[in-house]
Amino acid sequence: MQQIAKGIWKIVLGEPEEFTPEHFRQFSVRTEAIEQIPVSRECRVSEEKIHWRKTKRGITVTLPMETQEDIYGFGLQLQGFNQAGRRRYLKVNSDPAANTGESHAPVPFYISSAGYGLFVNTFRYTTFLCGTNSERGQSSGMTAENEIHEEFSEAAIYALKRAKEERKIIIDIPAAEGVELYLFEGNIPEVVQRYNLFSGGGCVPPMWGLGMWYRIYGGSDEKALEKLAEQFREEKLPMDVLGLEPGWHSHSYSCTYKWSYLFPHPEEMIEKMSQQGYKLNLWEHLYVYPKAPFYKELVPYSGDYEVWNGLVPDFATKGASELFENYHRDTFVKKGIAGFKLDECDNSDYNPSNWAFPDSTEFPSGMDGEQMHQAIGTLYQNLIYRIYRKENRRTYSQVRSSGALAAPLPFVLYSDLYDHKQFIRGVVNSGFSGLLWCPEVRDCANGDDLLRRLQTVVFSSHSLINSWRIPSPPWKQTDIEKNLAGEPMDTADYYTAECRKLFELRMSLLPYLYSAFVEYSHSGKPPIRALVMDYPEDMAARMVDDEYLFGESMLVCPLTYEEGTSRKVYLPQGRWYNFFTGMAVEGGRTMETEAAYNEIPVFVKDGAIIPLAKPVMHVDKDTVFEMTVKIFGEADGRFVLYEDDFATFDFEEKQKRIIIEKHPGSKLTIQTEAGDTSRYRFI
Amino acid sequence: MQQIAKGIWKIVLGEPEEFTPEHFRQFSVRTEAIEQIPVSRECRVSEEKIHWRKTKRGITVTLPMETQEDIYGFGLQLQGFNQAGRRRYLKVNSDPAANTGESHAPVPFYISSAGYGLFVNTFRYTTFLCGTNSERGQSSGMTAENEIHEEFSEAAIYALKRAKEERKIIIDIPAAEGVELYLFEGNIPEVVQRYNLFSGGGCVPPMWGLGMWYRIYGGSDEKALEKLAEQFREEKLPMDVLGLEPGWHSHSYSCTYKWSYLFPHPEEMIEKMSQQGYKLNLWEHLYVYPKAPFYKELVPYSGDYEVWNGLVPDFATKGASELFENYHRDTFVKKGIAGFKLDECDNSDYNPSNWAFPDSTEFPSGMDGEQMHQAIGTLYQNLIYRIYRKENRRTYSQVRSSGALAAPLPFVLYSDLYDHKQFIRGVVNSGFSGLLWCPEVRDCANGDDLLRRLQTVVFSSHSLINSWRIPSPPWKQTDIEKNLAGEPMDTADYYTAECRKLFELRMSLLPYLYSAFVEYSHSGKPPIRALVMDYPEDMAARMVDDEYLFGESMLVCPLTYEEGTSRKVYLPQGRWYNFFTGMAVEGGRTMETEAAYNEIPVFVKDGAIIPLAKPVMHVDKDTVFEMTVKIFGEADGRFVLYEDDFATFDFEEKQKRIIIEKHPGSKLTIQTEAGDTSRYRFI
Repeated sequence: MQQIAKGIWKIVLGEPEEFTPEHFRQFSVRTEAIEQIPVSRECRVSEEKIHWRKTKRGITVTLPMETQEDIYGFGLQLQGFNQAGRRRYLKVNSDPAANTGESHAPVPFYISSAGYGLFVNTFRYTTFLCGTNSERGQSSGMTAENEIHEEFSEAAIYALKRAKEERKIIIDIPAAEGVELYLFEGNIPEVVQRYNLFSGGGCVPPMWGLGMWYRIYGGSDEKALEKLAEQFREEKLPMDVLGLEPGWHSHSYSCTYKWSYLFPHPEEMIEKMSQQGYKLNLWEHLYVYPKAPFYKELVPYSGDYEVWNGLVPDFATKGASELFENYHRDTFVKKGIAGFKLDECDNSDYNPSNWAFPDSTEFPSGMDGEQMHQAIGTLYQNLIYRIYRKENRRTYSQVRSSGALAAPLPFVLYSDLYDHKQFIRGVVNSGFSGLLWCPEVRDCANGDDLLRRLQTVVFSSHSLINSWRIPSPPWKQTDIEKNLAGEPMDTADYYTAECRKLFELRMSLLPYLYSAFVEYSHSGKPPIRALVMDYPEDMAARMVDDEYLFGESMLVCPLTYEEGTSRKVYLPQGRWYNFFTGMAVEGGRTMETEAAYNEIPVFVKDGAIIPLAKPVMHVDKDTVFEMTVKIFGEADGRFVLYEDDFATFDFEEKQKRIIIEKHPGSKLTIQTEAGDTSRYRFI
Repeated sequence: MQQIAKGIWKIVLGEPEEFTPEHFRQFSVRTEAIEQIPVSRECRVSEEKIHWRKTKRGITVTLPMETQEDIYGFGLQLQGFNQAGRRRYLKVNSDPAANTGESHAPVPFYISSAGYGLFVNTFRYTTFLCGTNSERGQSSGMTAENEIHEEFSEAAIYALKRAKEERKIIIDIPAAEGVELYLFEGNIPEVVQRYNLFSGGGCVPPMWGLGMWYRIYGGSDEKALEKLAEQFREEKLPMDVLGLEPGWHSHSYSCTYKWSYLFPHPEEMIEKMSQQGYKLNLWEHLYVYPKAPFYKELVPYSGDYEVWNGLVPDFATKGASELFENYHRDTFVKKGIAGFKLDECDNSDYNPSNWAFPDSTEFPSGMDGEQMHQAIGTLYQNLIYRIYRKENRRTYSQVRSSGALAAPLPFVLYSDLYDHKQFIRGVVNSGFSGLLWCPEVRDCANGDDLLRRLQTVVFSSHSLINSWRIPSPPWKQTDIEKNLAGEPMDTADYYTAECRKLFELRMSLLPYLYSAFVEYSHSGKPPIRALVMDYPEDMAARMVDDEYLFGESMLVCPLTYEEGTSRKVYLPQGRWYNFFTGMAVEGGRTMETEAAYNEIPVFVKDGAIIPLAKPVMHVDKDTVFEMTVKIFGEADGRFVLYEDDFATFDFEEKQKRIIIEKHPGSKLTIQTEAGDTSRYRFI
């Protein structure tokens, strides 16, 4: 067992494979920052308790598991939360139809309440069995007979029952002859912080990235884009980023990366958008159509099977990476494109459209299809990130697949699974594994459903409305057919006004959220967290998968349209405050909470300081935020605002801290380090 | 390439594994019968066109695939039919939530319209990619750009499109270092017949097995059973078999295989039931609770992980098999139990109740958990079959999982997936792979839904109503809560009468269906078949997954309740007749067909002879069927009835044929071979 940093240990079993998440690491371990993280809980696992064996099938690793041990993580899990007693099959899959562990972004990393986390450095389709089965003979003392069955139903028979005896965590890694394990010590949040700092620390998006986003109709042309852009400004709807969908390519599925007839004047268009304060984001995927400019050069650097008649580039080769990097830099990034939406780099298990390349695909780097499926989302992000990094511009982009060690990458995951409840669970879970997740607004059943979905979105890391199927915004018409026919709904004015309020709410939270990201990069503490991350010893918090901490001190409890206008909210011990009304609520209990369709329950910790900005329509290079400070409760508190150019990587060297402190008697002081602030104005 | 029999070739690649379906073969190849099957279509695949390579992941085999090639089979596929262009992941799974290929009964055997079938002799979780991807550079000549997108939707983007170029079938077998392939030549039905005869020929159930079945409420005791049994006789509802559910075990989940307090007098009860003409069937699974009588002896013959606190017996060892066989023979079979329902021998991928043992489980035979998951359903059937075989009694039983080479096993698959449409697809698909499937009636939304489901059931290989959740039959009350509360529905009399008609219909078809099974054993032609099996060159039939041939000449077109009272029916070229009205219909077209909720569209081939029995209440050892013969159309025809004791294996040596022939002018002759018939009386 080799120590990597404080509370981080590496264990090598057998002969590990060459291609792993670590192999492609692009960011350094943040050793100094890791030193700052305490180890508040003793690690119950040690090297001698970890067993493994090699079989024909690969390798199997086992660790002990306690009776009451809780397990979190494994990446973007949309259908499960506390994974104790469950089997997780970590295969990248865009359409996980059941709670199997498959995901857009599977991460072979879990956090145990027994004082540790474990990262398995592999791209294999690994299965984790978290105490699913007792061992042979363990139950031999059981004697129950002739007990009365109370219910005859599948639900009764197949319910999850916590084990009454110690079990094992079994990790089943196919094909490998060895593997590296990384053990992280501490309580739940400390383990997550360690893992994120080990990955390189959290990303810091440009400030505009935290603003409002809108993806326009797939069939839109330049004129439609311009009209929509003007409309948002006229209607005073804050908007920072407009995203173009597949139609901008001259061929898509697979892609040409060339402007189509819909956009005959791209440079003028980018300029015009920029003048109105809009950033542009371009949809693409990595499957390269024969008419792409770099097709021929790419052939030797691609896998031996095609997807959608396009080449599958091998981003583990310098050849493919450079072709993509150079082309994207010269054609898009240097021309002003602010970011990309990297679609369909996840696998699909049952989609019949030739999506996924075979697991047996051979890539020139020596990787096989299985490894490439697990790696490709991260390699694609690395590549796009490098372009912006070299240009000294920050991006905030979207990606459909991610994996291990991704915390430093400024990419947000999304998907077209539509269950709002699952979207919320995704928000809650993403923070365990160094991921960001956007519960984007797409299809809505009606206006109130739109509001419910938007409430979750504005309290997420990425405030996006995806209207690729509809020419008019959903607040004008939620019905797709009527929207396509140009018929607005009767209630369009009401919903436009309500959406505007939510957009303004988002814009008012920008500096607050920016601080959370800066601290993510310093300490590894994610900006959005499950309740159990801030209250790791609160047993009731261990099962809460529908509330989350947003930034330092806000607890967000979204409702779905299906739930109606009231839901159960669990508040940990202590006093809490309603963010909107300021009303105090005693915690340590679960309470039924009312919220009309245009309201969302948000609570704030005692002593919290929340700086709020006057909403701007968009963030510009010289935007000055007009700030007010809201304080909650009597307890002393402190909040740090961060000031830099909000746009380049210069913040890594020069960044000011504005320290807001609440002293006894609720006296407030605001101090700026190293001279005055020029991007915040307190009013 | 080694010839095994006419049109059957064996190809050995590398070093095959020890444990395979062939390794556990219990029935001989029917070489003589295979000689009778023609080869009407040239096989487009030859040894030199089959490529393979060994990788770290296992082995990958490729075969060519033509542009218009259609692919069927892969076992019990509930969510897909024509598998061209699809990926099939053949992993045993009780709850396949998406169309991935996972199934209760995955079979690594497919039938291609290109004149061949392929059986891959493996228990590994094998993936078949049926022309999903073109090869690198194959699309390099494509030049489409700036075409107008017609629709912006996921449905448009991800639709299945047939390949425009030759592709590959890729077979990905993990862990193995070699494999045996079996190639079957012929057109679609010939390939299926060859495969079934290679497996040992189809099973022949006892006649009572083809009658009506009813599984009683889980909480029922002896008295409740007796009352229900009397009620069926009083209400003149035909019924042959009553099934007991988990409550009969003194502990279940896992099992003791000992009578519980609910059944204090099992021998008297079996006797009483037998006197009323009922057979009894017992539910069980193979996970052995510590209080089972043979628990201690079983420990050394079980896997190293438990399921539901029970041992997982290794039926690949003589020790475990003999313990189960001896106990079941002495305790149940010799006491009169007619069969078993072998539950939960399938895997579960997301059920959290500790169901499935890990894939890495080690078994004393040397098998691993992955192999055992794929094998265990068949090994369990083999074991139960052997008991009855040695007693010279036929059984007809139920099983939750099956696999390759299963045609001779008299077990019917079932499941608790509830979509009626999927159930129908299961009926259609099961015949491709030597399987039998029961679309059992369980939950119904209302009385008309009950009738719709029952219509499918009476035209299946197993006519079962499973009422394990409700004390009264569903025709008394379909609502589970009200049924539990003892409240009948207002329409109980109507639905009882309609169900009785369907039961009587089933009973009238027994001799007809028995002939289909006997011919299944002789020729490998399944009793229930997809349309494409009888019309392999009819291109329209190649996509029909909701109609099926039932016995020699009936085409059944079930409706679901959701579809209402009309559906589209495709009839191949030629004249067809409505089975119920005798009305002629011209085929070669798809037509909208009406059917009230108490009607089902059934068509009959021109020239068909259908012998019908006067419905009996149950089949006894001396039942004589009173027969009428229905003829359809002008064409000449012939039908063979088979007579034997309908109950033992003596039929293999002594069986009479009653040949019914229709001559020009519709003159009918009935001839019995070797003396008179004593079990059929023509009236």
